Amino acid sequence: MTANPTPAPDPRPAAQAGQGRLPDDQPVLLLPRWILPIRPARQLLSDHALLIRDGRIADIGPAPALLERHRGVPTRALPGQILMPGLVNLHSHAAMSLLKGYADDMPLQQWLNERIWPAEGKVMSDAFVYDGSLLAGMEMLLGGITCFSDMYFFPEASARAALDLGMRCAAGIVMFEFPSAYGSGPDDYLAKGLATRDQMRGEDLISFTLAPHAPYTVSDESFRKVLTMSSELDLPIHCHLHETAFEVSQSLEQHGCRPLERLARLGLVGPSLIAVHAVHLSAAEIEQLARVNASVAHCPHSNLKLGSGIAPVTGMLQQGVNLGIGTDGSASNNRLDLWQEGRSAALLAKGLSGDPSVFDAHALMEAMTLAGARALGLADRIGSLEVGKSADLVAIDLSAPELNPVFDPVSHLAYSVGREHVQEVWIAGRHVVHKRQLSHAGEIDREALVSGRSLMWQNTLGEIQAKPRVVQKTDGHQLSGGEGL
Amino acid sequence: MTANPTPAPDPRPAAQAGQGRLPDDQPVLLLPRWILPIRPARQLLSDHALLIRDGRIADIGPAPALLERHRGVPTRALPGQILMPGLVNLHSHAAMSLLKGYADDMPLQQWLNERIWPAEGKVMSDAFVYDGSLLAGMEMLLGGITCFSDMYFFPEASARAALDLGMRCAAGIVMFEFPSAYGSGPDDYLAKGLATRDQMRGEDLISFTLAPHAPYTVSDESFRKVLTMSSELDLPIHCHLHETAFEVSQSLEQHGCRPLERLARLGLVGPSLIAVHAVHLSAAEIEQLARVNASVAHCPHSNLKLGSGIAPVTGMLQQGVNLGIGTDGSASNNRLDLWQEGRSAALLAKGLSGDPSVFDAHALMEAMTLAGARALGLADRIGSLEVGKSADLVAIDLSAPELNPVFDPVSHLAYSVGREHVQEVWIAGRHVVHKRQLSHAGEIDREALVSGRSLMWQNTLGEIQAKPRVVQKTDGHQLSGGEGL
Repeated sequence: MTANPTPAPDPRPAAQAGQGRLPDDQPVLLLPRWILPIRPARQLLSDHALLIRDGRIADIGPAPALLERHRGVPTRALPGQILMPGLVNLHSHAAMSLLKGYADDMPLQQWLNERIWPAEGKVMSDAFVYDGSLLAGMEMLLGGITCFSDMYFFPEASARAALDLGMRCAAGIVMFEFPSAYGSGPDDYLAKGLATRDQMRGEDLISFTLAPHAPYTVSDESFRKVLTMSSELDLPIHCHLHETAFEVSQSLEQHGCRPLERLARLGLVGPSLIAVHAVHLSAAEIEQLARVNASVAHCPHSNLKLGSGIAPVTGMLQQGVNLGIGTDGSASNNRLDLWQEGRSAALLAKGLSGDPSVFDAHALMEAMTLAGARALGLADRIGSLEVGKSADLVAIDLSAPELNPVFDPVSHLAYSVGREHVQEVWIAGRHVVHKRQLSHAGEIDREALVSGRSLMWQNTLGEIQAKPRVVQKTDGHQLSGGEGL
Repeated sequence: MTANPTPAPDPRPAAQAGQGRLPDDQPVLLLPRWILPIRPARQLLSDHALLIRDGRIADIGPAPALLERHRGVPTRALPGQILMPGLVNLHSHAAMSLLKGYADDMPLQQWLNERIWPAEGKVMSDAFVYDGSLLAGMEMLLGGITCFSDMYFFPEASARAALDLGMRCAAGIVMFEFPSAYGSGPDDYLAKGLATRDQMRGEDLISFTLAPHAPYTVSDESFRKVLTMSSELDLPIHCHLHETAFEVSQSLEQHGCRPLERLARLGLVGPSLIAVHAVHLSAAEIEQLARVNASVAHCPHSNLKLGSGIAPVTGMLQQGVNLGIGTDGSASNNRLDLWQEGRSAALLAKGLSGDPSVFDAHALMEAMTLAGARALGLADRIGSLEVGKSADLVAIDLSAPELNPVFDPVSHLAYSVGREHVQEVWIAGRHVVHKRQLSHAGEIDREALVSGRSLMWQNTLGEIQAKPRVVQKTDGHQLSGGEGL
């Protein structure tokens, strides 16, 4: 963001201005080889230009016209690159990057009881969440993720890490019935989350969701409070839902209905709902989600790795459910890579339906961008390249030998590109990744984080013996499922 | 390989010798942080060293002992890196890298009839196969693949490209009933393949398989010839098998039995068989493959992308089928990345079985290395780090921020590492990738390939109109299935 909407004409010749990093408070005219704007849908623009001014997309059009219209504005040539909206990671537990590889290849209950929960019990603190979120944020940002929708203890610390990286974060006002290092219970969690929201009200990059953890960790009474707040404050409701078959059968036993039905009776199934995972859905339930304009955060790698199953994505797309893609946390998906995650989502949909035309490249790019923005209530600001929206952009280099030849740039984005091809990233006009490097020298002590503090957390966690702890309970429901938190 | 087994002692201090590239004909002592030898199974060695001499692994052991035993030998420090066997890509059509992204998101028959086959018909030549294989080889090599098992027209051109890159290639002596730019029919294909084999007899890096394309493109009579040659020359049989449900039902109609049963009656189902894809297998068929020590080349991304389904990997592993991983060609899997491919294989096995402990990290690393070597009849030479085997090695940098912290290096290889972390590659002792760059300056004109010839092929292919051509037939079987070739 900038305070100077009418800068002096740039004295440098345009051709020379394209190399170094330009000041973030000046407008800049980007000249990529292609632009994938997402809106209008299914369009690929060749030799167009995009003007960033005051942190926003101020103009898009054929390059010659824009060069004429914005004479004197510094240009940045992006030869061989495709410019598209920054990726939206619709479900993460960023701080769990510090638990990456701590426990794998284990049955779910053993994984949670013997490894993840004891580990979280030992280290949980504002400092752990800040460091883990910073580490995850660096990984996500260099991979082209400009916005992540997070759910974890100490959400203020994750939001702070995002701000320190210049990233957009939809912080989850997390809540569940049991006490933790973060709070004493549901009312305390809500109060703390709302306080964080008040404190960060001026931050353009931070938005919020209400994040009741899951039907099996949140009581009816607490869900009612969530609904009230969601309505009053116009916040999305970000909740794990139908992740495992066990979750569904347990709900049938304890509540006499499936979790989605329980939430529907409580009034939570509407356009504000982001159902995370949604692996076990009947055709009628898919239809129900579509009818009320609810969103789903699809996390295929986590669902596979924990043995939970595969979400019925083809049906959701056919019915028109707003489907975004999430990485989940690093303990159940050890690579926070939305390219890999999205690709798997598309390939699984094709493989399971037997129809290779399902979830095509354009649909996947929309799921990785605008659908996530829509779920978070941010579609008026991010998720597509339209004049007036925030300049949250990534430029991907398609000139690499392994991306040669280029018959169809959008096919490459879906099926060939990796995060190693993400060359440049802007968030709200700020140039946060330049030539595949973070541009935060001096703001974040990367060495201290990577070699110092993350090693310290590793040593602390390494000391924990793998012994089962007593599983905490909440109004009669044994904790189960999911991703630690 | 080197002609000098007793070099003069290196005059440089060991600590300084570790930086630049050393001559390939001198021994070198590698000092990585970890070694994953694959054999012994499930072992991870810390602070061990490995000696390369005369292109082979000459010693492995604790670093202090090896430094003492091999005084004067230049050392290469690999701090923060893990050394493991080079990856074996058990099924590729390397030259199809030039068709990457040419046609996606289409039903199989339309994809083949309207796009892939007309394209191949237009461009097929020794030059096309050489250029495409070189492009694919660069991609694979930089991703840590040191050996690929290929099947395509003009196998001599693919083998030549591999040699020019210093890569190991199991070239497929391809055969099928119909004529092509490469040959007139099955006898011609076999004769040409055998001539290539004779011509390359002196090449340590090149081995061969017999590669009858598929049951639906090869007659009984031709399969009998393949069997005879396989027995006489001790060559593996590399064949697409049970890729699609259509292939199986068509065989039932035309031959009164499933393709595997047909091959078994012809005598081809034995330890030499590499069944590529093997998506549609009954429990009895899995048991049959295991009983005869056959191998399977599992290509999960291609199977998903073409809507073919998901191979029953958990059953195969439980029954002891030798399971390797293949990328398939770039037209049906647009990224020749064995890390991504292996990861998907493991995750799919967990997700479909509902058991997260299935296909664990160590088992996956073996599938990506030794299992492939075994299938190709090369297990005495490559696939594990054992004294006397060829020095086909990759070093992966685990010090990257996104791989931090490191609780378990093998978990990271399975679930977090990408090809961007492959730092160094040796093949038969030759240091072919150094600091993530190909060390072939002067031998391959990379610019001419990437910007010049691949663009030329792109332009040529781009001219083809998308119109159906008459599908060629072979003894009554309509061509169908698979990957073009």
